[in-house]
Amino acid sequence: MNLDDIRKQIDSADSRLLELFSERMELCRQVAEYKKEKGMPVFQSGREKEVLNKIASKAPAELEAASRLLFSQIMEISKCLQREQLTEYKETVLSEFKKDPSVACPGIKGSYSEEACIKAFGDNARIDYYDSFKQVFDAVSGGRADYGVVPIENSTAGSVESTYKLLEQHEMYICGRLSIPVNHILAVRDKSKAIEKVISHEQALRQCSGFLDKRGYKQRAAENTSIAAKTVSESGESIACICSAHCAKLYGLEIAAENIADIGENFTRFVIISKELQAEKDADIISVCLSLPHISGSLYKLLTRFYFSGLNLTRIESRHMPPHIKKKSGSDSFEVIFYLDFEGSISNPSVNKLLQNLKADCGYYRLLGNYKEIL
Amino acid sequence: MNLDDIRKQIDSADSRLLELFSERMELCRQVAEYKKEKGMPVFQSGREKEVLNKIASKAPAELEAASRLLFSQIMEISKCLQREQLTEYKETVLSEFKKDPSVACPGIKGSYSEEACIKAFGDNARIDYYDSFKQVFDAVSGGRADYGVVPIENSTAGSVESTYKLLEQHEMYICGRLSIPVNHILAVRDKSKAIEKVISHEQALRQCSGFLDKRGYKQRAAENTSIAAKTVSESGESIACICSAHCAKLYGLEIAAENIADIGENFTRFVIISKELQAEKDADIISVCLSLPHISGSLYKLLTRFYFSGLNLTRIESRHMPPHIKKKSGSDSFEVIFYLDFEGSISNPSVNKLLQNLKADCGYYRLLGNYKEIL
Repeated sequence: MNLDDIRKQIDSADSRLLELFSERMELCRQVAEYKKEKGMPVFQSGREKEVLNKIASKAPAELEAASRLLFSQIMEISKCLQREQLTEYKETVLSEFKKDPSVACPGIKGSYSEEACIKAFGDNARIDYYDSFKQVFDAVSGGRADYGVVPIENSTAGSVESTYKLLEQHEMYICGRLSIPVNHILAVRDKSKAIEKVISHEQALRQCSGFLDKRGYKQRAAENTSIAAKTVSESGESIACICSAHCAKLYGLEIAAENIADIGENFTRFVIISKELQAEKDADIISVCLSLPHISGSLYKLLTRFYFSGLNLTRIESRHMPPHIKKKSGSDSFEVIFYLDFEGSISNPSVNKLLQNLKADCGYYRLLGNYKEIL
Repeated sequence: MNLDDIRKQIDSADSRLLELFSERMELCRQVAEYKKEKGMPVFQSGREKEVLNKIASKAPAELEAASRLLFSQIMEISKCLQREQLTEYKETVLSEFKKDPSVACPGIKGSYSEEACIKAFGDNARIDYYDSFKQVFDAVSGGRADYGVVPIENSTAGSVESTYKLLEQHEMYICGRLSIPVNHILAVRDKSKAIEKVISHEQALRQCSGFLDKRGYKQRAAENTSIAAKTVSESGESIACICSAHCAKLYGLEIAAENIADIGENFTRFVIISKELQAEKDADIISVCLSLPHISGSLYKLLTRFYFSGLNLTRIESRHMPPHIKKKSGSDSFEVIFYLDFEGSISNPSVNKLLQNLKADCGYYRLLGNYKEIL
């Protein structure tokens, strides 16, 4: 038999498979309807196991695992269809960013966070500076600021743990996201003087360690890059700092060396946080965190649901579940939570229903936000 | 119709579905065989798209997405079967831990890392102390130590970024994993004296911030908890440190307060690193990192392969791809790498073949290790 002949036979098998699949989906719909009428729970895992065992016993030995996988998928797809059928669209309130808002920014003038605030809100925003990320969250949750801007991820250093912890503790929302290129420079008060010591944020020092080690500079950690710049501007000329060009200019420093980071491409991603959910009409990123009973099968089934709703996943991370969430989810067996970003809008009917169902089905579920990237 | 009647019809549809599925899988096998004989590439994405479009055009409108999903799964399962059929088992060399090895440990005596070294290797190992994680990696890759022990994750603080970076840069292997409970205590030289200031590693200070803030203690960061303990032992009595009970004892300090962390349950996970792959007979955790062209569909398909091979995923994390890996994978479109942990052994035929195929199919792929948890 040649390739064309075999393919014709495959096409014929597919046509019959499709017919049978349609028939089975219609029967499942009838089961769901029947159960709904009688007030029975629609999804029962006992029946699923029974079906899979029956299949496995009938399948040829070499296809047993494959058949189990196929039929568990058929049942997942059927559940996706029924969930959509049984769920009603829930009106979502879309809102816009406040004009001329007050914005809580961590650090001091000249920081990368300030750059992010200006990029996000322009010159009309009132920026207030706070010592810590926690104070930024407190300012927003206490109503003293409309928005907060905090770093969540650096392309070199990874996730900003403390921001995740604060998001978990404060139950606030992400209403925007943006990236700031991190171009580290070496700044001094007077270029003609020798450099004895370099100060900066620990991460900035680490990101430039190749440059620093080669020149044998002594290093000292500062709370952040702009505090380092301020320190240099107020002290003797033998100290240098690592900061941004913007920051050096702000503190009247001279640039001693440019592009000193070991890795050329370096950016920090910031999120804008708000007290209430604020989704704009053209918001196209959705972030959720949720718990699943076990990782393997349940993650796969979760992705089936996303895939079914045509959603494109852009990030996934499993993290240890914090104790206060463990308490809330009411079970010790939920030990992991997932952070997921995917493309979509909560006003899209299919997404809207999916989120409602995730909320109902997951031990722990929280919509972190529906927002867009500010370019 | 009652529930039993509908279910009988479903069972009948399933029997016929299973038959057709078997028929289709047999046809796919013939295609693969034909192509292999003729030296043609076995998997062609063009043909897949064609099949899916044909299905979508024939499916009832309300089942279009569901049918596409089903048939893309059928083709994935068929590929899994063929990959297993076409791949030959590759002999894996299993090896055991060296007796009385030399072990590179970051920090100084009394650190949590030292505790991990002792737990992993007992009292017969020769432990050498190094200033940084990087020096530990250098010692192992340079042959000055048989193994290194480094923290990779803390249940409160999350992933240890620098260890991930070093794993990415050094191409070394993980050959063991263990967890050490982190029980922070407050230690002083003399319990009868008032405490003015508390020093410790930044993370330890943060993990005990509730305790410290309540008492209004001044805080200062130290390089690590054991250096803090050493400092306290050598200085005036008004300084306290946060460290482990083991560490306090080692430096002759008194315990001023126990269990001072905000969150009771706290542990650090360490990995043992080696220069060569070292998998023991009963190793049951596999760690890989790999790249996928896009996240959504391709992650889903990847999980199909794990699911097909009966593998239980225990961890997943998408991370920004480091530039040197981006260069190696030869494409700018691979912007994310996944870190995956799953249960299994590289000597299991199905897993063995899966890993070979992942290596062949992924732009970037690296087996990080096959090891077990030391309890």
